[in-house]
Amino acid sequence: MRLALVGFGTVGQGVAEAVALKRELLKEHFGSDLRIVAAFDSRSYVYDHDGLDPLALVERKKAGKGLGKVRRKEVSEMLSELDYDVLVEMTPTNILDAEPGYTNIRTALRCGRDVVTSNKGPLALKYRSLDQLAKRNGVELRFEATVGGATPIINLSRELLLAEKVDSMKGILNGTCNFILSRMGEEGLPFEYVLKEAQEMGIAETDPSYDIDGIDSASKLAILTNAIMGQNVTYHDVRRTGIRMITQEAVALAAKEKKVIRLIGEVNEGGVEVSPRMVPIGHPLAISGTLNVLHMHTDLAGAITVVGRGAGRKETASAIMSDLVGLLKRNACLVNGRVK
Amino acid sequence: MRLALVGFGTVGQGVAEAVALKRELLKEHFGSDLRIVAAFDSRSYVYDHDGLDPLALVERKKAGKGLGKVRRKEVSEMLSELDYDVLVEMTPTNILDAEPGYTNIRTALRCGRDVVTSNKGPLALKYRSLDQLAKRNGVELRFEATVGGATPIINLSRELLLAEKVDSMKGILNGTCNFILSRMGEEGLPFEYVLKEAQEMGIAETDPSYDIDGIDSASKLAILTNAIMGQNVTYHDVRRTGIRMITQEAVALAAKEKKVIRLIGEVNEGGVEVSPRMVPIGHPLAISGTLNVLHMHTDLAGAITVVGRGAGRKETASAIMSDLVGLLKRNACLVNGRVK
Repeated sequence: MRLALVGFGTVGQGVAEAVALKRELLKEHFGSDLRIVAAFDSRSYVYDHDGLDPLALVERKKAGKGLGKVRRKEVSEMLSELDYDVLVEMTPTNILDAEPGYTNIRTALRCGRDVVTSNKGPLALKYRSLDQLAKRNGVELRFEATVGGATPIINLSRELLLAEKVDSMKGILNGTCNFILSRMGEEGLPFEYVLKEAQEMGIAETDPSYDIDGIDSASKLAILTNAIMGQNVTYHDVRRTGIRMITQEAVALAAKEKKVIRLIGEVNEGGVEVSPRMVPIGHPLAISGTLNVLHMHTDLAGAITVVGRGAGRKETASAIMSDLVGLLKRNACLVNGRVK
Repeated sequence: MRLALVGFGTVGQGVAEAVALKRELLKEHFGSDLRIVAAFDSRSYVYDHDGLDPLALVERKKAGKGLGKVRRKEVSEMLSELDYDVLVEMTPTNILDAEPGYTNIRTALRCGRDVVTSNKGPLALKYRSLDQLAKRNGVELRFEATVGGATPIINLSRELLLAEKVDSMKGILNGTCNFILSRMGEEGLPFEYVLKEAQEMGIAETDPSYDIDGIDSASKLAILTNAIMGQNVTYHDVRRTGIRMITQEAVALAAKEKKVIRLIGEVNEGGVEVSPRMVPIGHPLAISGTLNVLHMHTDLAGAITVVGRGAGRKETASAIMSDLVGLLKRNACLVNGRVK
């Protein structure tokens, strides 16, 4: 299976490392070799039909060098010309117009390539059209890495809980907000102080709006709502309240009732919403730190909760590997009717 | 896919109801009909090659009637004579010699039938020999329902996290103990009082030893250790301490350090052990009530935690359905190389 990696920052490098680490294991299991044949960063690219050395790519990037040649065309133009099986799209999320990810993904799907992505923009804004395009072309669009970091919640719901009807979902989908709210509760500190601390630790961005105003959580909730509950919503359909207005006093009052305040994304019959809520201590949603969690209610299983690290190089690479394993499984099944 | 249901108590009836509920959905998805062709309780049985009405079976059982004819032979003898595709083994767990489940499962595997089971005894005592027998006969032995109630943790680890190396696991595998420890912590009540309360509520048995001495947790931990970490242990290899000696004072002391006491099963380089431990409030293992939880550490994903209801008619049926879906998927793949 020949991969084209678009975006070679933290996530792209993590995927290259994971491919190097797991290549033998996957070859043994599926009889199929995972080869990176193309890699693109914002300015340069490299292509070799026989496969590139993943760790050498990471070394070049770490040394501050480009990946190979300077790129003179749009990535999407090259994606329609080069030969590969799977586009792994890892450009940064853009919640305004979903570019350049949207065009990259559309191009690959149109050319009959499978796509695995960690880019939330295209899924949060244009899920339905991308899903239809993939189906029309008989290929797969997988996006486990867009939500919940390393937790394989989308594949869990779609593959293992296939016989279940998911009635409602609740989750904590942003590790930065959860870190801030946890610290406020556990140390009795004010919002502004903890935000500054999170920025110094690299947990929050210099412009923290994307996290603390719930934009990131709302994007992820829209993706989950479509993928797991079969709905057709976008980021703009999510009612959204962030955590800027949460005071020390509110946190202390919650604590008196043995509760914590968390930024919860919820989808139920009433709609799709991200807002701060009180959660009883001991409830699976009352977790601390930068963790992410999704709590689903289904007709047979009742409540199932999955918790994992929300972000990180290896964690996101893990989610992308989970999608690549899904494609390897399907290929093994298509080729010879055998799959372990 | 023709099912033979052995054991028609709470779990067996739950499975019959789930088959009735999900039959159409699964037929649509896999093009294969899920039919119950045989059902056995402790004294009676019924068999129809064309399929039985699942809800009529539940009605008969609820009305206190036998399932059909009085059984004159051993179940295992009949399992080697009748025609079916999958044995669903749901007789009660017996941690002394694993019977009658062990013989029932062996018989079906030897006859080239797939097996799905909720019975912990055979897996906790004789996993390796059953696993080998299944492989030799080219069939599958699935046992999602033995551990963690409705949470699909075994299938999650084996199928979705196939590329991950699981280094260690920690979990709360018994809902009764977790209920008792939660109540002691939250209400400041003594062990004996809460145990009695749990017995009155039907959460604990009249003889509570199986739960509170950690026997149930140790059986489940042995199963997970083999299934997820590829080891070869039995119930007897698990070092085991129950919760009888946990005092109100110990619980109060833990609370002062913002911790709770939970009965934790753990497998790491040091071995396999069930014992009471302190867990910080806010940690994914610090859950309350009758929930079960499994916390895995892997090389790429880091820590992943899955929480769900530990027991119950629908919940256990859900886990069995998850295994049946796995078999339907494999069949779809074998037959025509197509699987959604």
